[in-house]
Amino acid sequence: MGTVFVDMSMSLDGYIAGPNDSRENPLGDGGERLHEWVFDLAAWREQQGLEGGETNRDDEIVAKSIERAGAFVMGRRMFDNGDGPWGDDPFEGPWGDDPPFGAPVFVLTHHAREPLEMDGGTTFHFVTEGIERALERAEEAAGDGDVRISGGADVVRQYVEAGLVDEIQLHVVPVLFGDGIRLFEHLGTGPIELERTWVVDSPDVTHLGYRVGRE
Amino acid sequence: MGTVFVDMSMSLDGYIAGPNDSRENPLGDGGERLHEWVFDLAAWREQQGLEGGETNRDDEIVAKSIERAGAFVMGRRMFDNGDGPWGDDPFEGPWGDDPPFGAPVFVLTHHAREPLEMDGGTTFHFVTEGIERALERAEEAAGDGDVRISGGADVVRQYVEAGLVDEIQLHVVPVLFGDGIRLFEHLGTGPIELERTWVVDSPDVTHLGYRVGRE
Repeated sequence: MGTVFVDMSMSLDGYIAGPNDSRENPLGDGGERLHEWVFDLAAWREQQGLEGGETNRDDEIVAKSIERAGAFVMGRRMFDNGDGPWGDDPFEGPWGDDPPFGAPVFVLTHHAREPLEMDGGTTFHFVTEGIERALERAEEAAGDGDVRISGGADVVRQYVEAGLVDEIQLHVVPVLFGDGIRLFEHLGTGPIELERTWVVDSPDVTHLGYRVGRE
Repeated sequence: MGTVFVDMSMSLDGYIAGPNDSRENPLGDGGERLHEWVFDLAAWREQQGLEGGETNRDDEIVAKSIERAGAFVMGRRMFDNGDGPWGDDPFEGPWGDDPPFGAPVFVLTHHAREPLEMDGGTTFHFVTEGIERALERAEEAAGDGDVRISGGADVVRQYVEAGLVDEIQLHVVPVLFGDGIRLFEHLGTGPIELERTWVVDSPDVTHLGYRVGRE
């Protein structure tokens, strides 16, 4: 069985999105700033169906993260930008016909729905039985691959609190955001010790890898 | 003139103290965890009047931070652990007769008070004219040395918001605290861009240095 990992871009003060996020503004005001470092990288561009791009250490890290993920878990809000629950004409979210996952994606929701098979190997599965069951299904689907807990912040928090995450890798962007959505708003568990496993540094972003003791 | 710097130990989720901080519990519940990495280092021990200790890269960073600071600015609460304003029998705070600063310390307060000269080169000066004036006086006192904005979090935030800080160095401890006092709770300014200047990594702590565009 693979590992369960979190991979997020974060401002130095802990934000993963700006303020005033909405369906039309999913990253919040100025939130693109946290992802700028990735837009020119070859691995990210390839995932979006684009050619070219830079190949450097940042790129290697993104490529590894893409390659290792055999399945994804995400919150419903990340799936559809907050448009659900699905009506007669469901909004399919921000991902388009050919989402960048290329693997099964398990969406946490209270509203059952048939799987949605998209182009490029992405199938959205809708899980109403809670976070443990969603992870079980993702791990089955991933086989020897890893499972990425994609987000949002509340979903990451729930998995971390439940002791179901093995690794947290953060890409710390050199900006103080000051307002928005924090990755770790609060934890209901008390302190959680981590083991720092790797650090890779570039001018645009500092990558920090941590192992969490999965319970 | 030297530079103005912030130097803080912080959990990965941005806390510099645990919850339930009080006069008797200034670091909050479990807050010592954020400073464990420093307790065995030679430079820190020497500052406390203790002998021995480890000499490694963490120690070099602490030694540099101690050496460069020609004056300090701190909030009144950091000075006296929240005991003020001073009565007939003022509590002198947690610092004892021989505080570890060895330099002038400018305490922000609304209550004027005569300077307090302590052993070992520390003199506490009390500044009622606001953060700009406190920094001016600290810069005068520091001469060619640097000024450290010691804390607490609200004081650091005020100086950062006012564009009066040149450098932020953070010692990121591999733990999720989940609750307590955040270094950057919110900023009233909108995003502030930083330049990442150095990263030094050890198993116990990751040191991140940033330059802030002083306005």
